[in-house]
Amino acid sequence: MVCLAVDLLGGDHGSSPFLRGSILALEQNSQLQLILMADKASEAECQHILEKYQSRVSLSLAENVVKMEDSAVSALRKKADSTMAQAIRLHKDGKVDAVVSAGNTAVLVGFGIHILGLIDGVSRPAICTSIPTSSGKTWMLDIGAILQLSSDRLCELAALGSALCRSYDGKQLPKVGLLNVGSEESKGTDELKAASEVMAEAENYQFVGYVEGDQLFNGQQDLVICDGFSGNIAIKTAQGLSRFLKMELHQVLKSNFFTRAVVRLLKTTLKKFANRIDPSLYNGAPLLGLNGLVVKSHGSADEYGFAHAIVVAAEMAERGLVESISEEIFDRDLPESTLTRFLKKVNFKKQVS
Amino acid sequence: MVCLAVDLLGGDHGSSPFLRGSILALEQNSQLQLILMADKASEAECQHILEKYQSRVSLSLAENVVKMEDSAVSALRKKADSTMAQAIRLHKDGKVDAVVSAGNTAVLVGFGIHILGLIDGVSRPAICTSIPTSSGKTWMLDIGAILQLSSDRLCELAALGSALCRSYDGKQLPKVGLLNVGSEESKGTDELKAASEVMAEAENYQFVGYVEGDQLFNGQQDLVICDGFSGNIAIKTAQGLSRFLKMELHQVLKSNFFTRAVVRLLKTTLKKFANRIDPSLYNGAPLLGLNGLVVKSHGSADEYGFAHAIVVAAEMAERGLVESISEEIFDRDLPESTLTRFLKKVNFKKQVS
Repeated sequence: MVCLAVDLLGGDHGSSPFLRGSILALEQNSQLQLILMADKASEAECQHILEKYQSRVSLSLAENVVKMEDSAVSALRKKADSTMAQAIRLHKDGKVDAVVSAGNTAVLVGFGIHILGLIDGVSRPAICTSIPTSSGKTWMLDIGAILQLSSDRLCELAALGSALCRSYDGKQLPKVGLLNVGSEESKGTDELKAASEVMAEAENYQFVGYVEGDQLFNGQQDLVICDGFSGNIAIKTAQGLSRFLKMELHQVLKSNFFTRAVVRLLKTTLKKFANRIDPSLYNGAPLLGLNGLVVKSHGSADEYGFAHAIVVAAEMAERGLVESISEEIFDRDLPESTLTRFLKKVNFKKQVS
Repeated sequence: MVCLAVDLLGGDHGSSPFLRGSILALEQNSQLQLILMADKASEAECQHILEKYQSRVSLSLAENVVKMEDSAVSALRKKADSTMAQAIRLHKDGKVDAVVSAGNTAVLVGFGIHILGLIDGVSRPAICTSIPTSSGKTWMLDIGAILQLSSDRLCELAALGSALCRSYDGKQLPKVGLLNVGSEESKGTDELKAASEVMAEAENYQFVGYVEGDQLFNGQQDLVICDGFSGNIAIKTAQGLSRFLKMELHQVLKSNFFTRAVVRLLKTTLKKFANRIDPSLYNGAPLLGLNGLVVKSHGSADEYGFAHAIVVAAEMAERGLVESISEEIFDRDLPESTLTRFLKKVNFKKQVS
C-alpha cells in the first residue's frame, strides 16, 4: 500500500475537480490510500468519497488555506495551519509517502524546504515536468522554481534530473540536453557554456549538447536542463499554442454542415490524437531536491489531470525516488565550482595552443 | 516602384528555394524590382529569372559568402566582399530600398550596424517577428539579437516596436505586453519590474502588463517585448510543437484505409487550417533600430517563406518604416535611466507610507 496526502484546496477551481480526480486515482490504483486535506467549508463535499472508500480514504481538517496571491514569506510565517503545510507535515512525520498539491508554487517550495529540508548536497529544489515527444516523453527541469541559474546549479539540476530518469524511468544512461538559443558551442550565456563543459564529462548520463526550443519535442533527449525563466516560457508557450491550434482546427472543422458530418466519422481517430497530446497526461511535477516527495499539480488541472498527478506521485513513492536521488547525490564527489573548472580548462587549452 | 537587394546565399538549402521565392514575390507585387546577390558558382542558376524578368531583375556578383558558422567578429573583418555585405552596401548607397537575407543573424546584425549605422538614440538593433494569433498576428521583439536585456533596453524595444505597429499596421495606440513568468506584479526579474514601471507611463502605446507564454497566441496584444533569450526559446518552442503536432495528427489521420478515405474529403478544409498557421506566412523579421531596412528570413525558409519575407520588406519600404521610426525616436525626450526612475518611485512610495 502507498499512502498520499492530497491538498484539496489552493487550486483555481475549488475542491470539486480534485475530489473527482481522487476517485479516479483510487479506481486506477487499488493499492492507493489517501488522506484528504480540507477545511471546515469543504468538509461536507468530502462525505461521498469518505463513505465510498471507507477503508482507503480519511479526512484531515486544517484551519487555513494558502491562496495563489500569498507571498512565500508571509505564508510561511502565517499559514503553518494550512492544508498545504499540514499535508507536508504529515509526510515529515512519516504518516504518508508523498504529498500532492495544486497550490501556490512558491509557497509549496517554501514549506517543502522549511518542513522537509533538502537532500544533502542540494542547494534548492527544482520543478520537473514532462512533455509529450515523438518517442514518448521528455523531462524538463527547472520550469519555474528559480529564474536565473549559475552554471553550478545547472549541473546540480542535471544530477537531480538524471537520477529521476534512472530510478523512475529505468534509463541507466539518460540523454541530457541543455536548453539554449543555438546548438553551436559559441551560443548562449557564460553560465550555459561553463555548465556544458562540465556536463560533457558526466559519467552517469550522456550529455547530448545544446537543445533549441524547436528540438524539445523530437524525442532525442530524456531530460532537458534549463533555468526557471526559460523553462517556464517554453512550457507555457507550448500550452498556449496547443490551445490556439485546437481552437483553430475546431473552427475550421466545424465551419459547415459537410465538414461537421465528415468529422463525426473521424471522432474516434481525433480522440486518439487528443489523448496523445492531452496536457492532463503530463500533469504532476515533482519538486526534486527535497528530502521528501512533493508533487505539484497545475492549479487549473481538471479531474483527469489531478488523478494523473496522484498516480505519478504514488508511482514515484513506490519506486523510492527520493531515496535513490539521496544516495546518488551523497555518493557524488562534492563538485569543484564548475566555473573554476571551466576557466582551468580554457587556460589549459590556451597553454597547449 | 520599390527595389530590393536579395541575398541568395547563406541559407540552409542553397539558392534554389530563394530563386523560386523571388519569382513568387515578383508575380505577387508588380511594382517590385530585385537585385539578386550571388557568387560565380550560382550565376548560371540565375539565368532563368534574369531572362524572364529582364526589366525588373538584375544580378550583382560578390566574391564571398557568409557561412552559418562564421563569427560576427571574423566575418566583419574578412567578408566585406560577401553577398550579404554587398547587399547592405547597395542599400547604404541608395541603390535599393531594402535588403532581404536568410544568412547568419549575428553577422547580418554586425554588417547592418557597421555599414548602415543606428538610428540616433537607439543602442542596438533588435529582431522583430510576428506570430499568428486568434485575432490576426502579434509582433514579438527581441527574438534573438541580444540575450540579456537591461530595463532601459526593454523600454527602448517597446518604443521601436510600437513605432512599427503605428507605421506598418496603422495602429495608433498599440497594446504592448512584457513577456514574464507570471502576471502578478511581484513576478520576474528586477529588470522586468523596472521596465514595467516605465512602460506603464508610456503615452504612445498602451501597456497591458506582463504576458505569460500561454497568452502569446490569445490576440490580446499587438506587440510583446522580451529579451532575446526568452524570445528565441518561445518562438522556437512554438515552431517545434507545431511540427510535432502536425506529424502526430498526420499519423493518426493516415492510420488506416477508412481514415485515409475520410481525410480526403476534408482536404480543402485541412488546407485552410494549414494555411492559417503556416510558418512561411510569418517569415520576414525586420532588424529594428538600424538606419536602413534589413529583413531577416529563416535560414531554412522554403520558396513561400522567402517570397513572404521579400513582400514584407517591400511593404515596409513603401510605408517608410525606417523614416517613421527615426522621427519618433528623435522626437522622444532622451529617457532618464529607467532604473533611476524606478528607484525614485519606490523611495517615494516608502516616504509616503
